[in-house]
Amino acid sequence: MRIDALSLFPEMFAVPMHDSIIGRAIENQTIDLEVTNFREFTEDKHRHVDDYPFGGGAGMLLQAQPIIDAYDHTKVVSQKAGYPAGKVILMDPAGKTFTQQDAEKLSSDEHLTFVCGHYEGYDERIRSIITDEYSLGDFVLTGGELPAMVMIDAITRLIPGVLGNNQSKVEESFSTGLLEEPQYTRPADFRGMKVPEVLMNGDHKKIALWNQKEALRRTYLRRPDLIDHRKLSSIQKKLFADVRIEEEEKQADKKKPFTED
Amino acid sequence: MRIDALSLFPEMFAVPMHDSIIGRAIENQTIDLEVTNFREFTEDKHRHVDDYPFGGGAGMLLQAQPIIDAYDHTKVVSQKAGYPAGKVILMDPAGKTFTQQDAEKLSSDEHLTFVCGHYEGYDERIRSIITDEYSLGDFVLTGGELPAMVMIDAITRLIPGVLGNNQSKVEESFSTGLLEEPQYTRPADFRGMKVPEVLMNGDHKKIALWNQKEALRRTYLRRPDLIDHRKLSSIQKKLFADVRIEEEEKQADKKKPFTED
Repeated sequence: MRIDALSLFPEMFAVPMHDSIIGRAIENQTIDLEVTNFREFTEDKHRHVDDYPFGGGAGMLLQAQPIIDAYDHTKVVSQKAGYPAGKVILMDPAGKTFTQQDAEKLSSDEHLTFVCGHYEGYDERIRSIITDEYSLGDFVLTGGELPAMVMIDAITRLIPGVLGNNQSKVEESFSTGLLEEPQYTRPADFRGMKVPEVLMNGDHKKIALWNQKEALRRTYLRRPDLIDHRKLSSIQKKLFADVRIEEEEKQADKKKPFTED
Repeated sequence: MRIDALSLFPEMFAVPMHDSIIGRAIENQTIDLEVTNFREFTEDKHRHVDDYPFGGGAGMLLQAQPIIDAYDHTKVVSQKAGYPAGKVILMDPAGKTFTQQDAEKLSSDEHLTFVCGHYEGYDERIRSIITDEYSLGDFVLTGGELPAMVMIDAITRLIPGVLGNNQSKVEESFSTGLLEEPQYTRPADFRGMKVPEVLMNGDHKKIALWNQKEALRRTYLRRPDLIDHRKLSSIQKKLFADVRIEEEEKQADKKKPFTED
């Protein structure tokens, strides 16, 4: 996959995108990431890329010219390298909220271009090159680089070969629709905090039941909206009934007035 | 504000957090950001920080010891510098979805510590030091560094003095509950794409009405869920009625069969 990013701070991408798992995918050429500073394309003699808004208003707007010319350049370069023009993504608070489903869809694209803004906003005409607008969520950031890197990370880790066989637990969790059960590694006793007995006795049937029950408990306590009764197996339904009774008893205990010491 | 981050890839924070607006706040000491590599705290002779899960299962888990010892260290160092222990935040898919309201609340804290994981998951006992768990949204990432940086960016830009007087348009937009209207800067005609007449004629009353109407239109077309009729002024209600008629007419035009050329 070819990824282009248009940014005033290309050095922001340098380490986060070249370290760790995504970096290995860039090294072995599964991903071809190019970051272009659109300031290099401004026709302004002072190299400005922003200007005052027409009609007044606070702050400055990014101009259309440097971004659109930078995009035209990356399009030519990537086409010479054999990539189609592909989607052009703007990180914008008004965009579609990015989800794992979007990551999955975008991971089979051949070419993605991310436009990262700073300053107060954009000249509307920048949208003439944009095909998709995304937002990570309902919060405001100083620039588009970090959310673009988050999207690139979520998308590229799904490309075959990038994660290898390391299908993550998190992912399994997303697909079962339940949160992950608590997990433990060595030592068995860490400063008085002990690993549950059941996980250490080697009875795989019991362990599987414990895992399912604790996944249900965590989901019930934190994200009850994720539990779809119709999708639970008959064993899960029974485990879930036990969890609810146990947690309701805990709640009832908490509400009892302290009459004893 | 003191910010600690515990990470196996501290260099990932170097440029994104030292460039641009947040970097200036670090320079002028509004923010004191320290990133600690918890691998330096492992008691394992091979410097490993992960191990197999008890009870079986795929993949490796981050061990509690290196992270908790690294945290204890940063707590001592930050307390010597005069900061309280503060919240300890884990980036986790099961955490609360981070929003602008969380950013606002956290921006008045004196000390935040971010725990960034990688690999398949954590030893549950890591949660013994965690006070808050956040997720950016329903998507899976290779590590906790990028989402931690996103949160740090959203939080620190709200600290007085960090953005200066540059209250962003986006923020105003969030507070009115409507999306931003289209904005334009020079040139008035960019490759045939023209700035709307009204924004260039200097009639501020007309401009204000146009801005309100186009903000309503964009919100109606993209995020109709954000429009709360009871909160609209009587002028906005009239403008919104016009927008709906105009957009319904556009839709009706689109649906007409092409009987003429």
